[in-house]
Amino acid sequence: MAEKTTIVLFSGDLDKAIAAFIIANGAAAYDHEVTIFFTFWGLNTLRKDEVVKTRKGPLEKAFGWMMPRGARKLGLSKMNFGGLGPQMIKHVMKKHNALSLPQLIELAQEQGVKLVACTMTMDLLGLQKEELIDGLEYAGVAAYLGDAVDAKVNLFI
Amino acid sequence: MAEKTTIVLFSGDLDKAIAAFIIANGAAAYDHEVTIFFTFWGLNTLRKDEVVKTRKGPLEKAFGWMMPRGARKLGLSKMNFGGLGPQMIKHVMKKHNALSLPQLIELAQEQGVKLVACTMTMDLLGLQKEELIDGLEYAGVAAYLGDAVDAKVNLFI
Amino acid sequence: MAEKTTIVLFSGDLDKAIAAFIIANGAAAYDHEVTIFFTFWGLNTLRKDEVVKTRKGPLEKAFGWMMPRGARKLGLSKMNFGGLGPQMIKHVMKKHNALSLPQLIELAQEQGVKLVACTMTMDLLGLQKEELIDGLEYAGVAAYLGDAVDAKVNLFI
Repeated sequence: MAEKTTIVLFSGDLDKAIAAFIIANGAAAYDHEVTIFFTFWGLNTLRKDEVVKTRKGPLEKAFGWMMPRGARKLGLSKMNFGGLGPQMIKHVMKKHNALSLPQLIELAQEQGVKLVACTMTMDLLGLQKEELIDGLEYAGVAAYLGDAVDAKVNLFI
Repeated sequence: MAEKTTIVLFSGDLDKAIAAFIIANGAAAYDHEVTIFFTFWGLNTLRKDEVVKTRKGPLEKAFGWMMPRGARKLGLSKMNFGGLGPQMIKHVMKKHNALSLPQLIELAQEQGVKLVACTMTMDLLGLQKEELIDGLEYAGVAAYLGDAVDAKVNLFI
Repeated sequence: MAEKTTIVLFSGDLDKAIAAFIIANGAAAYDHEVTIFFTFWGLNTLRKDEVVKTRKGPLEKAFGWMMPRGARKLGLSKMNFGGLGPQMIKHVMKKHNALSLPQLIELAQEQGVKLVACTMTMDLLGLQKEELIDGLEYAGVAAYLGDAVDAKVNLFI
């Protein structure tokens, strides 16, 4: 039976999302069944780049405007310097032929990593399915725990 | 034998504390034996709302004044906006009938989740038992490791 | 067979590094085989105090200057107050005879905790082996996963 690995991606920081996907892709390459459960700010990693028309209340609209729209817009947890830090990191990653975060996400989906959006957070922040990238599953904490209890490696990032 | 789940709550952020208690309560609902070990800023989650009279040195007093006094006073790890962010989150949680952090803590205690305050941090920050809510256990890292080594799901939040 | 414990130290914050080493040293005292895998900002914990002459490109030089040079220079994740917070924490730790971070690192090495520097991050940030303390191993995410899959306690800090 395949080993299992789960990651809760709570953070919406570029550096932490990169770390999460590098671990997830590494585990998938070793034939682990891997689940990433996106909750709170982590959901921003999954937003589409473009503005998607939706009907929302004013508070949900405000969250939508204030939070980064997708993997290309995330900031760093340290040394963000108003967006200069992420540019520096992206520059050195490209120079070293490291995969960018959007490419890491694509690779994860190709490798069958299960990407699960936390439905409770979506409700709270007013994020709708049309605003998120394709190929996701939608579930709550019970589904996460069901995966985690069978996994050897469980991380909260 | 019951599955075990442990969480180290290091963070003193409202959003991370909510995530910790949602996972803990979910695991307890599935009959896991759940331990949350509160260390560093995570201990602020357990402070009583009211000022408790204690004898302290000046540095311990300073920590006491600077750190948030209980679950109702925590800020967000992102988008705190000087306290506006937590108000927004509390508002949408109430609107969606989600349990507030104080209610999540109460539910955890009702479900038998073991809440353990890290005695070493209490010494360092000068926090005394009378300043923390009732129903806690007091222990160090050895007790945490004793629980974690038997648990399938171990998270650091 | 010995129990195994792994920690990914992603964070470059003093408080989180202290927590990581206290858990690692605790586990080692219980005869666990312990690995700390230092990635991203966590690598700063391992930098030598002194400036080491190296040949680097301008971007790598910039990272080198902006990032804290070793365990004595790390800031706090909360209440840093431009460096006052770390002084306060160091002061109370000394007062309570708690080991400082440099002492915790030394103890970990004495107890045989395996300290692994993430080679991919070293490439990206332009950190070279001569800039890091002695006694480290150098490896990538595959080696980390190899340890983690046999471990009961796996934390991401």
